[in-house]
Amino acid sequence: MKFSALAQHLGPVEATSLAQPPQQDPEITGVMAVDSATAGTLSYIEGDKFAAQIEQTAASALILPTDETLQGRARARGIAWVSCRDPRLAFARAIAQFYRPFRPQPGIHPTAVIDASVTYGKNLSVGAHAVIQAGVTLGDDVCIHPNVVIYPGASIGDHTVLHASCVIHERSQIGRDCVIHCGAVIGSEGFGFVATAQGWEKMEQSGRTVLEDGVEVGCNAAIDRPAVGETRIGRNTKIDNLVQVGHGCQVGEAVAMAAQVGLGGSSRIGHRVLLGGQAGVANQSRVGDGAIATAQTGVNGHVDPGQVVSGTPAVPHKIYLKVSAIYSRLPEMYRLFRRLQRHSS
Amino acid sequence: MKFSALAQHLGPVEATSLAQPPQQDPEITGVMAVDSATAGTLSYIEGDKFAAQIEQTAASALILPTDETLQGRARARGIAWVSCRDPRLAFARAIAQFYRPFRPQPGIHPTAVIDASVTYGKNLSVGAHAVIQAGVTLGDDVCIHPNVVIYPGASIGDHTVLHASCVIHERSQIGRDCVIHCGAVIGSEGFGFVATAQGWEKMEQSGRTVLEDGVEVGCNAAIDRPAVGETRIGRNTKIDNLVQVGHGCQVGEAVAMAAQVGLGGSSRIGHRVLLGGQAGVANQSRVGDGAIATAQTGVNGHVDPGQVVSGTPAVPHKIYLKVSAIYSRLPEMYRLFRRLQRHSS
Amino acid sequence: MKFSALAQHLGPVEATSLAQPPQQDPEITGVMAVDSATAGTLSYIEGDKFAAQIEQTAASALILPTDETLQGRARARGIAWVSCRDPRLAFARAIAQFYRPFRPQPGIHPTAVIDASVTYGKNLSVGAHAVIQAGVTLGDDVCIHPNVVIYPGASIGDHTVLHASCVIHERSQIGRDCVIHCGAVIGSEGFGFVATAQGWEKMEQSGRTVLEDGVEVGCNAAIDRPAVGETRIGRNTKIDNLVQVGHGCQVGEAVAMAAQVGLGGSSRIGHRVLLGGQAGVANQSRVGDGAIATAQTGVNGHVDPGQVVSGTPAVPHKIYLKVSAIYSRLPEMYRLFRRLQRHSS
Repeated sequence: MKFSALAQHLGPVEATSLAQPPQQDPEITGVMAVDSATAGTLSYIEGDKFAAQIEQTAASALILPTDETLQGRARARGIAWVSCRDPRLAFARAIAQFYRPFRPQPGIHPTAVIDASVTYGKNLSVGAHAVIQAGVTLGDDVCIHPNVVIYPGASIGDHTVLHASCVIHERSQIGRDCVIHCGAVIGSEGFGFVATAQGWEKMEQSGRTVLEDGVEVGCNAAIDRPAVGETRIGRNTKIDNLVQVGHGCQVGEAVAMAAQVGLGGSSRIGHRVLLGGQAGVANQSRVGDGAIATAQTGVNGHVDPGQVVSGTPAVPHKIYLKVSAIYSRLPEMYRLFRRLQRHSS
Repeated sequence: MKFSALAQHLGPVEATSLAQPPQQDPEITGVMAVDSATAGTLSYIEGDKFAAQIEQTAASALILPTDETLQGRARARGIAWVSCRDPRLAFARAIAQFYRPFRPQPGIHPTAVIDASVTYGKNLSVGAHAVIQAGVTLGDDVCIHPNVVIYPGASIGDHTVLHASCVIHERSQIGRDCVIHCGAVIGSEGFGFVATAQGWEKMEQSGRTVLEDGVEVGCNAAIDRPAVGETRIGRNTKIDNLVQVGHGCQVGEAVAMAAQVGLGGSSRIGHRVLLGGQAGVANQSRVGDGAIATAQTGVNGHVDPGQVVSGTPAVPHKIYLKVSAIYSRLPEMYRLFRRLQRHSS
Repeated sequence: MKFSALAQHLGPVEATSLAQPPQQDPEITGVMAVDSATAGTLSYIEGDKFAAQIEQTAASALILPTDETLQGRARARGIAWVSCRDPRLAFARAIAQFYRPFRPQPGIHPTAVIDASVTYGKNLSVGAHAVIQAGVTLGDDVCIHPNVVIYPGASIGDHTVLHASCVIHERSQIGRDCVIHCGAVIGSEGFGFVATAQGWEKMEQSGRTVLEDGVEVGCNAAIDRPAVGETRIGRNTKIDNLVQVGHGCQVGEAVAMAAQVGLGGSSRIGHRVLLGGQAGVANQSRVGDGAIATAQTGVNGHVDPGQVVSGTPAVPHKIYLKVSAIYSRLPEMYRLFRRLQRHSS
C-alpha cells in the first residue's frame, strides 16, 4: 500500500490528526519496531528514548511526534514521515491495516457440548470440546474457542470472544465486545471463610460477577464473585494476565491493571485508574478516579483521585522518589546517629 | 421464611449463640450486603466501619454484634435483629439457608474419557470432556466438572469437587471434602534444576503432593511436587487464587493463604498461619503456628509462633508500622544529616 | 542396585567426578531426603544447614561434598558414601536411576481434534480432547497431553512435551526439548492498548512468541506476543509457575525465573540471569548477563552484568542488607532527629 493511502487510515481522531502529510510516497508492505525495521516497512518513534533510532532505522516511513527536529532528521535521511500528537495510536491503526487477527468461522464444532436450553444469536462460533451448560445466553457474533467451559446461567454479550480454556462461572454476566483470554476464570467463588474454633467454615458465595462492555481479561486471571451482591468491572477496563480481583470489588471504567495485580475483597477502584504490575490493593481500600499506583505498590486505605502513589505502604510518588534517592545513604546516617547518640548520653 | 425460623439455623456453635432472640418477626426472602439491602432481606453489621450503616440500611432484619448501642439503634428504626459474638459466621449460615450452590447431578457424561482401571465410589459425577487416566481412585460423591484432567495414579477422597479445567498430576493424593477450583494444578513438577557448566540440568521430581481433608485450592493456583518425598497441605487449609506452593513445602492445618501468595521450595508453614495477599516465603523458611504475615510481606528465615510480621524483609508488624509512620520524613532527616556531617568534618 | 553400580551413573561431568569411591556396597532401593531417609536408601548432604543430619539420618548411603569432616562422620556411623563437588547434581542423577517420569505412549487419542493440514513427525502422542488447528507443525516424539489447544500456524519442535490444558497461540514457535506445563499460555496477545479521549483503543498484537530449545515454562505462566516482532526466550531458560513475560521481552539463555516473576513489556534479560520469586522487571528495563535479582525485587532501569540487586527500587544487594540491618532502628533515629531539629531551630 502506498504510504499516502495508509496515512488516510491513521486518523481522524484528534490525537492522531496529521500535522504533516507525507512528502514522499514509498510502497509500505508491513509494520515493524523502529530498531529492527527493514526497507519497505513503516515504524514510529515516541519519546526521547527512541529518538536516536532515527539515525539508524532502515524503515522507509515513520510516524513522528510533532517535533521539528525529528522531522528534519527524517527528511535528511530520506525517510518519508507523517507527524501527529500520538504516534503510538497512529501506529496501532497502521498495524490494523496489515494484520487481521485469527478469528474462527461461525459454526458449532460437532464435539462441543451445548445444553438444549442455551439461547444464542447469529454467527455463533463454538470451538471443539467447548462445554456450554444449562440456561446460558449468548449474543450475536459470539466466538467461543476450544475447551471453554461456561457454567449454568451465564450470559455473554454480542461480539465477545472467549479464548481457549477460559471458564465462565454460573450467573456471570459478560457484556458486549469483551475478550476473555486463555485460562481466565470469571465469577469463581470468593475466598470466603469464617474462623471458628473448629477451623475455617465456608461462607457460600451466592453473588455474581458482572463485566460491562468492552472489558478484556488477561490469561489465567481470576475475577471472583462475592457472598452477596456483585463483583463489577466497568466498561472499557483492561485487565492483564494473572490478575486477581477479589470478591465484591467495584472497578470503574477504562481502568488498566497490569499483570499480576491483586485486588483484595470489596475494594473500590475509580474510573481511569492505572495499576502497575504486581501492585496490590488491600481489602476494603478505595482508589479514586484517575489515580495511579506504580508497579509493586501496596495500597491499604484510600488513594485520592488523581494521586500517584508508590511503595508499600503506598505514599505519594514524589516522596517515594525522594526516599528512594537517599535509601543507600541510610547506613551512613545510621553511623552518624550512633555517634551522636553516644555523645548525647 | 420467618426471621424467627431463620434464626434457628444461625447457631448453635458458641460463637453464634444468640444473645437475643428476635423481637419482631418479618418474612425474610434473601440476604444482602448492609449497604445495598432492600426490604425483606437480612444483613449483618460487624466492625466500626459498618456501624453507621445501621441508620441507612433498608434491611428488614440484621445480625448484630453483642453491642447494646447498635441494638438500640436497630430497635429505634424498627429493624428486627439478633445479636451474637460472630455476626459474619451467623450471616454465612443465613446465606446457606437461601443459596444452594450449583452441583451437577451424579452421572458420567458420555464424552468423558475414563480409563478402565479407574475405581470409584457411589454418586460419581463426571462432566463433559473430563479425562481420568489409569489407576486413579475416586471416593464417594466425587464431583468432577468438565475438562478436568487427572493423570495416572492419583486418588481423590469422598465429597471432593474438582472444578472445570483443573489438573491433578500423577500420584497426587487429595483428601475428603476438598475443593479444587478452576485451572488449579496439583502435583505438578517442582522447579528442580541444577546449574552445570552446560546450563540447567533437570532433577526429576519423583515425589507427590498430598492435600489432607477439607483443603480448598483457588483458581489457577499451583502446588508442586518435590524431587523426593511429599509436598503436604494440612487439613482445613484454604488457599486462594493464583497461589504458588513450591516443591516439598509442609503446610499445617487451618492455614489461610490469600491470593498470589508464593511459598518457596521446602518452606514449613505451621498451623493456623495467615498469609496476606502477595506475601512470599523464601525457600527453606519456617513460619510458626498462628503467625501472620501481612500482604506483600517477604519472609526469609524464621517467624516465631504467633508473631505478626510485615515488610520485605519481614520485621515485627509493630516496627513496620513505626517505620512506615516516619517513612515520609526520611528526606528531611537526610537534610539534617548532611548539615551535621558538614559541621562535624 | 548395588551402591557401587549406582555410583557409576553419578558422573562423569567434572562437577560430579567422584573424589572417593564407595567403601561399602549396600543394596540401594531408592532415594530420599536426608531427614526422612530410611534404611536401604541413598540421600545427599549439601551445605552447612544439613550437615548435622549426618548424625541422625537412617540412609544407607550418602552423596557428600568433598569435606573430610563429613566423610569421617559418615564413616564413623557406618554409612557408605561417595563425595563430589556438586552433591545435588549427583543426587539428581541418582533419582533418574530410580524414577521414570510418566510419559504417554505414542498414538493419537480418537477424541483429539486435529486439522487435516497439521504435519507431524514420528512417535507423536496426542491425548484425549486435545485440539490442534490448521497449519500446525509438530516434530518427532512430540507429546501432547489431554485438553491442550494449539491455535493455527504454531510449530512445536522434536521431543517437546505439552502438559494438560496448556495453550499455544497462533504463530508461536516452540523449539526442541521444551516442556510447557499445565495451564501455561504461550504467545497470547500482549497488553497493548492506547489511551484516547474515548478510552482504551486496542493495538493488535501481530507478532509472535519464540521459545528456543530446552525451555521449560511452568504451570499457568503466560508469555505474551508483541504488536510487532517477537517475544523470545533463549535456549535452556527455565521459567517457573505463574510467571508473566510481557510482549516483546528478549530473554537470554540459561536464565532461571522463579515463581510469580513478572517481566514488563520489551524488557531485556541477559544470559544466565537469576530472578527470585515474585521479582518484577519494569517495561523497557535491561538486566545484564549473570545478574541476580533476589525475591520480590523490583527492577526499573538497568542492572549491570553480574550485579546482585534487591529491594524495590532495586539497589545492590550489599546495600540492601545494610539498610535492612538498621531498618528497625529508624524510629529511634527519628526521635533523635526530632530532638536535634528542635535544638537547631
